[in-house]
Amino acid sequence: MNKFWSPAVRDLTPYTPGEQPRLNDLIKLNTNENPYPPSPRVLEALQGEIGETLRLYPDPDAERLKQAAARFYGVETQQVFVGNGSDEVLAHTFQALLKHDLPILFPDITYSFYPVYCGLYAIEHICIPLSERFEIRIGDYRLTNGGIIFPNPNAPTGCLLPLAEIGALLENNTESVVVIDEAYIDFGGETAVPLVKRFPNLLVIQTLSKSRSLAGLRVGFAIGDAGLIEALERVKGSFNSYPLDRLAIAGAVAALEDRDHFERTRLAVVRSREWLMRELSGLGFEILPSSANFVLVRHPLRDAAELAALLRQRKIIVRHFRQPRIEQFLRMTIGTDSQCRALVESLRAVL
Amino acid sequence: MNKFWSPAVRDLTPYTPGEQPRLNDLIKLNTNENPYPPSPRVLEALQGEIGETLRLYPDPDAERLKQAAARFYGVETQQVFVGNGSDEVLAHTFQALLKHDLPILFPDITYSFYPVYCGLYAIEHICIPLSERFEIRIGDYRLTNGGIIFPNPNAPTGCLLPLAEIGALLENNTESVVVIDEAYIDFGGETAVPLVKRFPNLLVIQTLSKSRSLAGLRVGFAIGDAGLIEALERVKGSFNSYPLDRLAIAGAVAALEDRDHFERTRLAVVRSREWLMRELSGLGFEILPSSANFVLVRHPLRDAAELAALLRQRKIIVRHFRQPRIEQFLRMTIGTDSQCRALVESLRAVL
Repeated sequence: MNKFWSPAVRDLTPYTPGEQPRLNDLIKLNTNENPYPPSPRVLEALQGEIGETLRLYPDPDAERLKQAAARFYGVETQQVFVGNGSDEVLAHTFQALLKHDLPILFPDITYSFYPVYCGLYAIEHICIPLSERFEIRIGDYRLTNGGIIFPNPNAPTGCLLPLAEIGALLENNTESVVVIDEAYIDFGGETAVPLVKRFPNLLVIQTLSKSRSLAGLRVGFAIGDAGLIEALERVKGSFNSYPLDRLAIAGAVAALEDRDHFERTRLAVVRSREWLMRELSGLGFEILPSSANFVLVRHPLRDAAELAALLRQRKIIVRHFRQPRIEQFLRMTIGTDSQCRALVESLRAVL
Repeated sequence: MNKFWSPAVRDLTPYTPGEQPRLNDLIKLNTNENPYPPSPRVLEALQGEIGETLRLYPDPDAERLKQAAARFYGVETQQVFVGNGSDEVLAHTFQALLKHDLPILFPDITYSFYPVYCGLYAIEHICIPLSERFEIRIGDYRLTNGGIIFPNPNAPTGCLLPLAEIGALLENNTESVVVIDEAYIDFGGETAVPLVKRFPNLLVIQTLSKSRSLAGLRVGFAIGDAGLIEALERVKGSFNSYPLDRLAIAGAVAALEDRDHFERTRLAVVRSREWLMRELSGLGFEILPSSANFVLVRHPLRDAAELAALLRQRKIIVRHFRQPRIEQFLRMTIGTDSQCRALVESLRAVL
């Protein structure tokens, strides 16, 4: 801190991302990356983009990418906003659509970047406790509010809210924006995108980092009524005209076009999750029902931080959150079959 | 505009980037891109990064890139901040270092994104008129202020402020941050980076978009006292943990390492600029002295918008700003030798 800082900066508490270790022999199950590589068509498209044209600015509107997302989801191009990872899309969403006089609402246990954005943009918020079974109860969100946001499935719990519940929430909340953050939806949920037609206050946010195996490329997007998208475009155009580089645009288009690879890899993750949940259950773990590419689990007899340290000694990293209510849980990303087996074997050895 | 927008969004006036035409047969001299391709080592590094690891998040700190920039400029790693293009670095700078009770100062004719950032972050500003010869006079900046920012060389004028003047400005302005935006410095100026040691309130911002031929990759950085960099990191960590994708990091490192390609291409641009200035002068143009990869010129007998339209008919695009004091000027990017010749021939034909 020094006198040159803008006053608000001293009160910021930045988000802490999961560790990105530089050691290659670790089994990395801590940041919910996809264990399978991106589509070969993505790699091909990236190859094709490497060349002389990198000297030129990208399309500031990433029109090709908006079209590809619009085709995939059956919406209009002007209902799509794209950004440098869904974190950037979320940041612009907080600034463009969630900053009102009333506080916004989100769960007490959820993506821990939300309160950080509130800090950055001076947005008041109220945390709504999850149920004892760590579920979102939409009845709890019937408060006058400046907006509602949660991931579906929620993170780090993995619990899914059925689409009918989202519809019911929207029926009852028509005066502020409802943001459904669908980072993990492709691993077991039904997207809320079709509801966008009925609800001009619904914004659905997605990312290519998880189900498209492209965390390293930084592409996210939002789908909503054109009126909401316009607000995001105004903020984006006041922040950075060209948030997506030429390679990211080309790779993301190819990712959305390769439906086969997408289906195959996401189903493989779902199958591995079912196997892993059975095995963990056999080892005595309590497991929250997961529709995501991770599970949140607790062993009734062992301290979570200690278990994480023991796994680490065996070169497996999982995520532990020092946070009320879940400090005795571990979040484990679904790896390949052999990574899941290694995880189970290591747990068996240390329990 | 609809009721769901955050109130501040309705008053935003986003930046208008130069046109990125999709026609391949145009000579594009409107957005100051480098006419030469990026270093072959950059293309090789990008090739090497395409693969399975794109499923993994990038290093959130882009440590390798910070180290490469620190080596190039002879500073410490913690004196370097990196972002998704210098526009993102500038955005974070406005929020982290330039938002105070006092208004910030910048020239009346300068990078037109500055007032846009002020709008986004509700920062008051005072525009200081350039001299009649379109020069920055540092004496005019002796006002109590919340910060000072200008490009050097200035854009869209191309005029350079000698390093000694920057030093003198800093001697007299010790209570607020001075940001020198060096997007074009490599085409004829001396960087202010060495002054960072003496002045804890100096932030120098650079980009790989111009002198490194990488506008399509979106990489910019800032160099300053570690105290200033920390403020930027706090805002960045509250906005997007991973602003630079894996490809951008790899390509940018290679660009900073290939000093030969950098020297060769920037000197080629300087030579072409000298030739173009002589020719334009011969055609009767008034030309502001340029240290950048563009020239701002005015023909005493012809309307600027009309000239731009005539060039466009001949498939050459230059930039015209509808802005007081320079509405009769055109900004022309320095192209390859053959592009410069085509420009001169077209002008000769239409004048």
